[in-house]
Amino acid sequence: MAPDTTSIPGYTIFRKGDYDSAAAAALIRQGTPHPLDQLSIAEIPVAAALLREYASPKSLKFNCITLREPRKQEYVAFKQGKGPRPDRRAFSIVLDRESGKIAEAVVNLTNSKVEEWKEVNDVMPTLTLEDLDILEGIARKDSRVIEACKGIGITDMSKVYFDAWAIGFEERWGFERRLQQGLAYYRNSEFDNQYAHPLDFSVIADTEREEILSVDIRYVNGERTAVPLTEHNYLPHFIGDKYNHDRLKPIDIVQPQGVSFQMKGNELSWAGYKMHIGFNYREGIVISDVRAHDPYQDRERTLFNRISVVEMVVPYGCPDKPHHRKHAFDVGEYGTGFMSNSLKLGCDCKGTIHYLDGVMALGSGEAAVVKNAICIHEEDNGLLYKHTDYRDGTVISARDRKLIISQIITAANYEYGFYHTFTLDGTYKLEMKLTGMLNTYPMHPTEQAAPYGTEVAPQINAQNHQHIFSLRIDPEVDGPNNSVIQSDAVPSDHPVGSTQNFYGNGFYSKKTPLRTSLEGAAEYCYETNRTWDIVNPSSINPSAKKPVAFKILNTSCPPLLAKPGSIVYKRAAFARKPLWVVPYRDYEIFPAGDYVCQSTGRENHADNQTVLDWAQRNESIENTDIVCYIQFGLTHFPRTEDFPIMPAEPVSVMLRASNFFQKNPGLWVPPSSVCVDTMSRNAFSTSCCVGSKPGDQSRL
Amino acid sequence: MAPDTTSIPGYTIFRKGDYDSAAAAALIRQGTPHPLDQLSIAEIPVAAALLREYASPKSLKFNCITLREPRKQEYVAFKQGKGPRPDRRAFSIVLDRESGKIAEAVVNLTNSKVEEWKEVNDVMPTLTLEDLDILEGIARKDSRVIEACKGIGITDMSKVYFDAWAIGFEERWGFERRLQQGLAYYRNSEFDNQYAHPLDFSVIADTEREEILSVDIRYVNGERTAVPLTEHNYLPHFIGDKYNHDRLKPIDIVQPQGVSFQMKGNELSWAGYKMHIGFNYREGIVISDVRAHDPYQDRERTLFNRISVVEMVVPYGCPDKPHHRKHAFDVGEYGTGFMSNSLKLGCDCKGTIHYLDGVMALGSGEAAVVKNAICIHEEDNGLLYKHTDYRDGTVISARDRKLIISQIITAANYEYGFYHTFTLDGTYKLEMKLTGMLNTYPMHPTEQAAPYGTEVAPQINAQNHQHIFSLRIDPEVDGPNNSVIQSDAVPSDHPVGSTQNFYGNGFYSKKTPLRTSLEGAAEYCYETNRTWDIVNPSSINPSAKKPVAFKILNTSCPPLLAKPGSIVYKRAAFARKPLWVVPYRDYEIFPAGDYVCQSTGRENHADNQTVLDWAQRNESIENTDIVCYIQFGLTHFPRTEDFPIMPAEPVSVMLRASNFFQKNPGLWVPPSSVCVDTMSRNAFSTSCCVGSKPGDQSRL
Repeated sequence: MAPDTTSIPGYTIFRKGDYDSAAAAALIRQGTPHPLDQLSIAEIPVAAALLREYASPKSLKFNCITLREPRKQEYVAFKQGKGPRPDRRAFSIVLDRESGKIAEAVVNLTNSKVEEWKEVNDVMPTLTLEDLDILEGIARKDSRVIEACKGIGITDMSKVYFDAWAIGFEERWGFERRLQQGLAYYRNSEFDNQYAHPLDFSVIADTEREEILSVDIRYVNGERTAVPLTEHNYLPHFIGDKYNHDRLKPIDIVQPQGVSFQMKGNELSWAGYKMHIGFNYREGIVISDVRAHDPYQDRERTLFNRISVVEMVVPYGCPDKPHHRKHAFDVGEYGTGFMSNSLKLGCDCKGTIHYLDGVMALGSGEAAVVKNAICIHEEDNGLLYKHTDYRDGTVISARDRKLIISQIITAANYEYGFYHTFTLDGTYKLEMKLTGMLNTYPMHPTEQAAPYGTEVAPQINAQNHQHIFSLRIDPEVDGPNNSVIQSDAVPSDHPVGSTQNFYGNGFYSKKTPLRTSLEGAAEYCYETNRTWDIVNPSSINPSAKKPVAFKILNTSCPPLLAKPGSIVYKRAAFARKPLWVVPYRDYEIFPAGDYVCQSTGRENHADNQTVLDWAQRNESIENTDIVCYIQFGLTHFPRTEDFPIMPAEPVSVMLRASNFFQKNPGLWVPPSSVCVDTMSRNAFSTSCCVGSKPGDQSRL
Repeated sequence: MAPDTTSIPGYTIFRKGDYDSAAAAALIRQGTPHPLDQLSIAEIPVAAALLREYASPKSLKFNCITLREPRKQEYVAFKQGKGPRPDRRAFSIVLDRESGKIAEAVVNLTNSKVEEWKEVNDVMPTLTLEDLDILEGIARKDSRVIEACKGIGITDMSKVYFDAWAIGFEERWGFERRLQQGLAYYRNSEFDNQYAHPLDFSVIADTEREEILSVDIRYVNGERTAVPLTEHNYLPHFIGDKYNHDRLKPIDIVQPQGVSFQMKGNELSWAGYKMHIGFNYREGIVISDVRAHDPYQDRERTLFNRISVVEMVVPYGCPDKPHHRKHAFDVGEYGTGFMSNSLKLGCDCKGTIHYLDGVMALGSGEAAVVKNAICIHEEDNGLLYKHTDYRDGTVISARDRKLIISQIITAANYEYGFYHTFTLDGTYKLEMKLTGMLNTYPMHPTEQAAPYGTEVAPQINAQNHQHIFSLRIDPEVDGPNNSVIQSDAVPSDHPVGSTQNFYGNGFYSKKTPLRTSLEGAAEYCYETNRTWDIVNPSSINPSAKKPVAFKILNTSCPPLLAKPGSIVYKRAAFARKPLWVVPYRDYEIFPAGDYVCQSTGRENHADNQTVLDWAQRNESIENTDIVCYIQFGLTHFPRTEDFPIMPAEPVSVMLRASNFFQKNPGLWVPPSSVCVDTMSRNAFSTSCCVGSKPGDQSRL
């Protein structure tokens, strides 16, 4: 199977003839993959062929062909040896090229059959990179665009660039058309930073008919706004002579014995943890079946069924047109998988790396691969624990370790790093790193950037915006049935001077069970340092006499600043709350809907339910199979330091074992230092030893 | 000067004869040290001798002998070449062994003269490790203690241990006596973890007269509480056979060309930053004169005059006696310097480390050194920035780097790691790591731990507590006169549908100047994502047209849960607010007072002012020399996972450049990856290069 290349940087496409169909079919029948493995480059074209055959004579464009994960009960039965291996299935969203109609289909690859075919209405699927690739080409040739450029003195159209975006909202066209907006920029020379030269107009395009519908020029007091022409570059071509090569000496991270994790296909085991690493065009990394070996019970215990980032929204805070349209839903509108970077050692991560590829389908039904889309590596994480006995000078300390499963995406101007991290203390943390380029807009001489933006360089306005991510956790805390208990740190109920709180120092954690999915739509409370425990009510910690739990620590959950009644407030209903808890249902994944492009946020849309609809069913979420949507992120008021390229800004959310293990779960880790010297009580004695056994000079 | 050893683990004492007094005196006269260098082992005994001579025939006990930093104006004049080198001075708190009276003295070491001697009243100075070392010995021999032990079946007093604590509050004795409390534990064998065997009584001791004043036994329904005898150990002696030596392969961090920072004495320069590293018995690490090279203005710009952690409080939340007395002020009551660990490569930090010693005085006036008390090292910090142009596949990324100046202290059961961190994006971050041992208490069979604690192991209660730290920042943002502007992210003032906010998406950063020290006592507001900009009103960013700023990002500032009117609320007034801003005054450093032991929180104490008093002066804090006290921390409801030794828990606060630099301040960092390949538009092309110049295969 010799790979071909494509016009989309980072994609390697496997075309007809690149694979042996008979061998592929045999592979599929053989059923070797793990039921949660992403579709292979062999399976995707087979699914496409079956769908084409089924839909014939319609001409299909494949919006996606991706793994149809087995239903939970079917998969659980298989895992437990109580049911057969689930059939391999593909899920596809297809567009009829003639009618523009959209259908969802399920293909059974094990028995080569299209099992489901359902037309969906009033929805627009994800804009693929192929879809987005159209806009720039047609815009440059459009006479109105050429005219608009002339109006600000630009005649060389090869220097005009368009970032293609989904359209947050556009009154002028309904669902008749599948829309994109194009934000216009200028480049002075090849590789010049276009974000230093934003233009004062934008375009609206029909993705399917490949035509420019409108060129929207912004006039200020009837005048055009000149393009800022000063260059602000960051590529070495321009600023290489400004590099200081002597200041920073290298830091090498070396793993002479290799990594500490093992991969069996896509199943990972590390330091007592086990999990499966999946990937798809929309969610990117999917982590499933997360389990941990309990050193005290000497058994494997389940933690999470499935972890993925299922939505994000970036609402911009400038009320002026055309900025009201800018509120990118990067997961739902573009697909985290589609936008994956191909990663490189030493740049994206250091140390010894294990990479996994990401496999996706093109509109043609051919498979495309992003090589090294997923990075799996370890990092030292500082102290795991330390204690010195001040009497006798005994010192013990051990070092913590991170396992990081990461990917980086490019969403036009911005980049997002996703770092799913496990540590030895029983913590899962999702850290996002935001970098790349600010979205910019040119300023008319009569304008000022404040209050809705910052003039990051002369005439260049970077507008206020938020980034709100939605982390979906399908918990399985020590078993399938879980509940969520809200915990608030509050002073004792009794006044100072009362017998119950004489000295006034009493405080405790007030517990409020979230009983229904409406109660599960929880608010954060900073004053009480609110956290939420995902508990298993049937599994009681024998010492603490409380149900075992994983605690959600989410202190970075900015309120959605768009007002109630606003477009963003409707479309991004998921971002109204830092937590939603709803009962599990198969294939309910995306909190802003399965179809986010051009969505209006209409409630109870038959083909496009959101987490708001799920919450409003108001079902019990107690001691049952539940799913948590955790929203977190940040509000970004741009600074000059964020220009021309942004320093990476981290934001994270954590879930950590809380009365889940009987003791510190990291006590099996050999200490990096033990010093015991009671005779002289002198901590500098040479009897200090390194490693856990005297004389064991293990590596530091 | 040959070092001797002492009975305090980690201290190396320099006794008479260990140094050559004449040489020391010459050294002092010569004036070689930087004016902010800590007192040397030569200077301390000289200061002690001068003080003894001055006070003769009184017999003195030295509570501290530490650097008297020059007054700010004197130091500034010297730095700017407009004034003479400041004289070297020592500051000492002395106790008259006879009368118990306390005095503050200033010794001029340059001209061998005691310049100030001032008696202070109604105050108790820090309890030194020497002071704390007394309690266990006298308690074990006390007949009432022996009796109390017998009552729960303990007869071997060598197995009984006492953690000596300052006494948060004790009604029975006033300022006549200098008090400690002793929390009692039991050890089954040498090195056995005593915190698994807490005893049901505590003692109160007079530090100076070395006598036990009271043995307070807790009776539950008239009964004693048995000592929990099950062992819960963490030292390899006990659990070494449970270590899993195969699971984690080594990660080596290697710096073949050495570190990137230079030290000239205690002056550090790194990656464009410059600063001075000081240390004292109370604050531990003190970072002064922090400056940054501005690559755009090509000049050095001032950031901070002085950074240190000046207080912390750990209030426990159980209202029952004797727990109301547990609210340790580890900086003020014990001294962060005094409690410093001597650090070790590979255990506390990895990579190439530069250590500095900590120098302190003993009660005898002799100098004691903690070797390697301060660790200075670098770490890789992941992505500094990255951007891929999705059109042409150009990729650039650079890696960030941390400079970390750290120390670790042992405060009886707990350990605290202090990590002062600078990164290439113009950020200073203080990260605290909390580890060590939970404070524990035995449970009577009729008791339950909830709601004020957790039963972390059978019969062992670990009580709810908070850790609130106070970071003192004396800012010098681009010059001496600064102001603080409160920033709140708020929706547009205009309703949805109005012309000013038609689509309802508008939001902005509302700016409120803090004008007086009463306004400077600010509250956090989570709903508006509140931050505070330390600005220089006279230095305007030419693009942003706003004053240059460093932004305080403090999202981990738990409210003090002890009620208004409670002892803790009074004593820890500093912890009532996440931010205090007051005008700078020489030698106003400690927000809970210079004398925290047995403090009552009385306002306007003549010899013991607190930040509350400073705020209530209600002076202007606009465009003047100001100081910020930033409170942050966490509320800890213990988990079984925190026992028998706690996994390190991090908490941090940040100050970051905000419209301070004209552009991203890290653009001088050579990128770790540049890939440019426009011809094939194929990101996998072998033309990808590493390093900033084609063919420059620099280290990853």
